[in-house]
Amino acid sequence: MRHFLTLKDYTKEEILEIINLSLEIKKDLQAGIYKEELKHKTLAMIFEKSSTRTRVSFETGVFQLGGHALFLSNRDIHLGRGEPVKDTARVISRMCDMVMIRTYEHSMIEEFARYSKVPVINGLTDSYHPVQLLADYMTMIEYGIAENDVVAYIGDGNNMTHSWLFLAAKLGFELHIATPKGYEVEAEVLQEALAFAKESGAVIKVSNDPKEAVLGATIVTTDTWASMGQEDEKEQRIKDFTGFMVDDLKMSLADKDAKFLHCLPAYRGQEVSEEILESHAEIVFSEAENRLHAQKGLMVWLDRHRD
Amino acid sequence: MRHFLTLKDYTKEEILEIINLSLEIKKDLQAGIYKEELKHKTLAMIFEKSSTRTRVSFETGVFQLGGHALFLSNRDIHLGRGEPVKDTARVISRMCDMVMIRTYEHSMIEEFARYSKVPVINGLTDSYHPVQLLADYMTMIEYGIAENDVVAYIGDGNNMTHSWLFLAAKLGFELHIATPKGYEVEAEVLQEALAFAKESGAVIKVSNDPKEAVLGATIVTTDTWASMGQEDEKEQRIKDFTGFMVDDLKMSLADKDAKFLHCLPAYRGQEVSEEILESHAEIVFSEAENRLHAQKGLMVWLDRHRD
Amino acid sequence: MRHFLTLKDYTKEEILEIINLSLEIKKDLQAGIYKEELKHKTLAMIFEKSSTRTRVSFETGVFQLGGHALFLSNRDIHLGRGEPVKDTARVISRMCDMVMIRTYEHSMIEEFARYSKVPVINGLTDSYHPVQLLADYMTMIEYGIAENDVVAYIGDGNNMTHSWLFLAAKLGFELHIATPKGYEVEAEVLQEALAFAKESGAVIKVSNDPKEAVLGATIVTTDTWASMGQEDEKEQRIKDFTGFMVDDLKMSLADKDAKFLHCLPAYRGQEVSEEILESHAEIVFSEAENRLHAQKGLMVWLDRHRD
Repeated sequence: MRHFLTLKDYTKEEILEIINLSLEIKKDLQAGIYKEELKHKTLAMIFEKSSTRTRVSFETGVFQLGGHALFLSNRDIHLGRGEPVKDTARVISRMCDMVMIRTYEHSMIEEFARYSKVPVINGLTDSYHPVQLLADYMTMIEYGIAENDVVAYIGDGNNMTHSWLFLAAKLGFELHIATPKGYEVEAEVLQEALAFAKESGAVIKVSNDPKEAVLGATIVTTDTWASMGQEDEKEQRIKDFTGFMVDDLKMSLADKDAKFLHCLPAYRGQEVSEEILESHAEIVFSEAENRLHAQKGLMVWLDRHRD
Repeated sequence: MRHFLTLKDYTKEEILEIINLSLEIKKDLQAGIYKEELKHKTLAMIFEKSSTRTRVSFETGVFQLGGHALFLSNRDIHLGRGEPVKDTARVISRMCDMVMIRTYEHSMIEEFARYSKVPVINGLTDSYHPVQLLADYMTMIEYGIAENDVVAYIGDGNNMTHSWLFLAAKLGFELHIATPKGYEVEAEVLQEALAFAKESGAVIKVSNDPKEAVLGATIVTTDTWASMGQEDEKEQRIKDFTGFMVDDLKMSLADKDAKFLHCLPAYRGQEVSEEILESHAEIVFSEAENRLHAQKGLMVWLDRHRD
Repeated sequence: MRHFLTLKDYTKEEILEIINLSLEIKKDLQAGIYKEELKHKTLAMIFEKSSTRTRVSFETGVFQLGGHALFLSNRDIHLGRGEPVKDTARVISRMCDMVMIRTYEHSMIEEFARYSKVPVINGLTDSYHPVQLLADYMTMIEYGIAENDVVAYIGDGNNMTHSWLFLAAKLGFELHIATPKGYEVEAEVLQEALAFAKESGAVIKVSNDPKEAVLGATIVTTDTWASMGQEDEKEQRIKDFTGFMVDDLKMSLADKDAKFLHCLPAYRGQEVSEEILESHAEIVFSEAENRLHAQKGLMVWLDRHRD
């Protein structure tokens, strides 16, 4: 049995297997074909922080596969409060067939997985956001630019950045990260990624210069400057991130056909300008939609890999 | 593709088509027949204000049609906060097959519909409550009194009153509205309704006199004096609505076989007396149940009218 | 039509019928067989107090039977506030096929049942927790110790204790209850149980001495000292319950093969020691899992007993 907690636990072949499965499932859906691979199965979705996109994509995805998703919000369940995580994991994994967790500390989801009898999926932690990256890479493939792409990530060194690092390092593409000073990615994550990059041949460049980072990029991407739970720091962050907005100037430095990706929600006038977001709306909302398809692929893959 | 935001966007023929479909679907259900017309389809239900009745009827309805409803409460999603409505609309309508919204400002649902790729249903706004009226008219038909009925609405000039105006104006029946001074329907809505009434031959009378309004009525109906969000005004409203309770005296002035309708929840001793409500309980709770059937009819109709 | 509000309304034969059905359904599930006995049916779950275990077991159970559960939390519905319970009961039972209620006052669920057109299940009240006892007895049968078992309940004289009283009294097994002074079971419930015990031959002993209670017990069980809503009393209760923890000493006084049960959540170092809980984890988490199977059996049984 496999969990899906970070991309670093997966080989290039496995990641591509999941994405290919997702592309097939998407094609089926567009043709009105529903293969009920999770018929009668239940997914417990534990949301310690709320999210429309993650919620809707998982709940719809499971249903289209013939299963049912239980929405357990932070009003209904508190991991580690009331009862130890190990008890909650043992109870829920005796009743449900798969578990998705969106929480703060990554160690919480690791503890849950340790005691779970069923596959656990990371739906976002403070450290990683691997399901988003499946959707992102799937989108890159659909736009025909995955093979030799150069991705520039401009912004906060957060869970999204960490996940881009592992994706690039595993798949072997070129990644430029530019964060403001003080907002760099975690040193340990970077070291791990660089070790994987040696094997895959991935080129990874980290700097504090957004203009340098976008040079030659075929994909430019970013994320909100203040994630959930960081609202207090918002004002300070807006100051510190001056010059990091993805706007016409930055995009003009990238490849002439460069695409823009955003995992949403987008804050116009902060990490991205209205013009750039709206002129790339088709790919950005396809990327959002691909959360649905990529997670269906992932769940089917995990279901097939039970012992 | 059609949305269902207000009755004014629908012709008499379309309204009757939806209601006839609803009557058929109800008959099927009573015979234990479930036609899965929304098999594999998902309905996103966005509730910015909570409601047991709307929630239970839509969620049960979609399920009986083979689909699944996602319950997105105001704890999970805030239209227009965090991200613009247009982004939420684009994301959700890429993942789900239909959307139901219960919110405050009617303009919010119009903005959502503008960007949605799938049909949007108004589950209540400050201005209109069209799905309730489908259930109400369906109930009138079942009780054999729809053809030549005279409806008296006694109470607040609110979203229910606006919807009665459009229903009468479109279908051509007689409607008497009596509101206290200062609680009249919106002038613009009244003008629009009177314009439709000219075509349909509907007679519409508006006054501040509840006794005059009930004269000859075959249906007497009302609504709570203080809707959700108006709790602060409750005391003042109770004063201002003195004499507007539907009680034995009012009903005695109506047609001798007059029926009473109420969209619930009912506040005894305010807009209706305990006696009137309980002596008409069978029709009132059938009306509530018809929310289920009417909305199933509506969803099937909208699904059939996709491009 | 039958409701399931307390065990005292059920005969020994009926209780065993439900449990046997549950055992069969569990065997089917383990063999991958899903008999959709509640196909197209909906269960409204009304939670006035939250609970992961009850929520997950009912929602998963209904789905595995082909039906759908609606989760109505205390944010979505307030029994008796806004509208009278009798109205809510009439509306919901017109739309849904079964209702599960978890609330505070037992009289609330009785009022609801009085007006409901469909079966109502008690998912926990301040007075009783009968579905937990179905799971507990099912677990006892699976462990081959139900026939001549002696159950010792050590702790608070609460809804769990009341339900053990009725279960023992109806089925005819021996039950020892030890509560601290001031935390005894309700006198009226005890009288009722003793009356049933006369018929069944059950031996029921009530004391304030936990060591005496565990002597010869084949099952030792307990429950949290401070249930939901009693958080204020927690400190006082911990003092008052000194000496009532189920630990190695207590278990050593019981039968040498004695098993430990706990309805969870467990508070280590209060009602049970970490060692006892973890050394009996297999049976305790089987007991939790049996909530799923026992409630499926119950729902199928109730569905078959509609008029």
